[in-house]
Amino acid sequence: MICVAIDAMGGDFGCEPIIEGTIDALKEREFTAFLVGDQAQMEKFVPKEFINRVKFIQSNEIFEMKEGATNVLRHKESSIYKAVELVRSGECQAVVSAGHSGATMSLATLRVGRLKNVARPPIATLMPTSTGTRTLLLDVGANVDCKAEHIFQFGVMGEAYAKEIMGIKEPKIGILSNGEEDGKGNEVTKEAFKLLKKMKNFVGNAEGSQIFDGSMDVIVCDGFVGNIALKSSEGVAHAMNKLIKKEVKKSPLAIAGAVLMKKVFKIVRKNTDYDEYGGAPLLGVKNCVIISHGKSTPKAIKNAIFQALKFSNSNINSVISNELEKFKNE
Amino acid sequence: MICVAIDAMGGDFGCEPIIEGTIDALKEREFTAFLVGDQAQMEKFVPKEFINRVKFIQSNEIFEMKEGATNVLRHKESSIYKAVELVRSGECQAVVSAGHSGATMSLATLRVGRLKNVARPPIATLMPTSTGTRTLLLDVGANVDCKAEHIFQFGVMGEAYAKEIMGIKEPKIGILSNGEEDGKGNEVTKEAFKLLKKMKNFVGNAEGSQIFDGSMDVIVCDGFVGNIALKSSEGVAHAMNKLIKKEVKKSPLAIAGAVLMKKVFKIVRKNTDYDEYGGAPLLGVKNCVIISHGKSTPKAIKNAIFQALKFSNSNINSVISNELEKFKNE
Repeated sequence: MICVAIDAMGGDFGCEPIIEGTIDALKEREFTAFLVGDQAQMEKFVPKEFINRVKFIQSNEIFEMKEGATNVLRHKESSIYKAVELVRSGECQAVVSAGHSGATMSLATLRVGRLKNVARPPIATLMPTSTGTRTLLLDVGANVDCKAEHIFQFGVMGEAYAKEIMGIKEPKIGILSNGEEDGKGNEVTKEAFKLLKKMKNFVGNAEGSQIFDGSMDVIVCDGFVGNIALKSSEGVAHAMNKLIKKEVKKSPLAIAGAVLMKKVFKIVRKNTDYDEYGGAPLLGVKNCVIISHGKSTPKAIKNAIFQALKFSNSNINSVISNELEKFKNE
Repeated sequence: MICVAIDAMGGDFGCEPIIEGTIDALKEREFTAFLVGDQAQMEKFVPKEFINRVKFIQSNEIFEMKEGATNVLRHKESSIYKAVELVRSGECQAVVSAGHSGATMSLATLRVGRLKNVARPPIATLMPTSTGTRTLLLDVGANVDCKAEHIFQFGVMGEAYAKEIMGIKEPKIGILSNGEEDGKGNEVTKEAFKLLKKMKNFVGNAEGSQIFDGSMDVIVCDGFVGNIALKSSEGVAHAMNKLIKKEVKKSPLAIAGAVLMKKVFKIVRKNTDYDEYGGAPLLGVKNCVIISHGKSTPKAIKNAIFQALKFSNSNINSVISNELEKFKNE
């Protein structure tokens, strides 16, 4: 039985949506939930019939968002610290946190530890595409300044994720660049391009638009660029929705039209909805660490837990270490 | 009378849409159009009543998209070379090209020349926002590897554009980063942040989503990051449109809804349409150089010419040089 540690206090809306999501996950899957936080607060949201599938781990502190990430090492009573420690000690196989993402990364790297041969663990996130598939984009924020070698390793880790978790046999792997042509890129990506050519499934440079057109399965970049690509695209989608809503309100005909199109908008939302996968794994660390949005809904938390279970049941971590070992010896 | 040189051959669809756009511009504004290309081909598309407002400059060669940008210096008979030379010689005050953008940049920098105090000319583009305003994003591709000092200069040039062309008295200027907080950024942007603080209107880091929420008037970044932000956002908008269209087709009710919402979609498209401004200026070079998409429609070319006229009638270039001079002496 897989045990999942859940930082129940770290989210922006307190423990309620997080525990609700956990209960929803327990309804659909077999696992034990270790809820880390203030037991008195948490208990209220756990229905009696689930009480024996949950373990409460008391924590009296919440690590504040405004704190610097590495300060968390001095906050051993915080829910996030205690949740990650459950993975370190082996009591849990995975941790899900909607708290301070920098702190989660620091704890994952420093307390749980990197896999053999991994230099820098990246955050990998699934992006929706117009063809209905997903593109794995990494790194979206863990490593702001990267060397070519780090970006190359993201390629190896992304391939392992695509194969082991997404079930794609021959994933197409690209590197995010300012043009498709082979010569494009900045100093670091051009160097990473050369290293990535060692991978059989590397197909070359990918433009920003290719994140969303289904032409690639995995796209690698440094965490600075990845964060900007991610936030820019969320911004566009948000702006378009806002613009449509504003214009619809101006006309009764358009309101009628929007009602008739309700199902379409719902499907588009579902296709592009963050809640559908609910969290981003930090790849290249031992066991499984899933980082969720601070504003996660119960649905997002449920899906983040499903991701953690799938991850824990896969061979991804040994594949990552072995593949990196092979390239090291090349 | 302002004279605008137009590379009529460089676009992906031949000279027809470019000349059509030029004629449309001539209908609405006073200027002389220097059409550079094959005269026999071009003449067919110029109605008699406009013939005395147009000058044909014969060119027998088109500079190919597949060529390396700086090779254009050896192609003195190409339409793009001849069009830029008209600005160098002083016969024209502006040039609009839908051809090889790298070649246009090389010619602008090497043949027309940079303004005093400018280190690297950036491409600046107007991005739509959910509030109906536009955000000027620069650099979106001219300078792939930038130093902090270059990004600082983009801030000064962007402010000049916002004041002189967009008419914003106190433009809010931000630097694209992986988070809003002051400490965020990669090595180069953190250093650029320090330099930008010298500017009165600099407000700090901007996340990718802030390109589209109207909170900033000008956002600076290096050309690699800017290109990825631009292409990613175009990709999302395209993917969302495609997804909506696909889902609408599946249901007669939704088709009816889409018909009722037609006006809304049209407004959204107009708000986010590239054709509405038609081209991106290369800032920091002498006179005026406007770079248009290879796939420009007549409307895009018309608006690119309008931009060239507005630019040529403004004081932007002297403001850029003077402002940079002031900072140099600080």
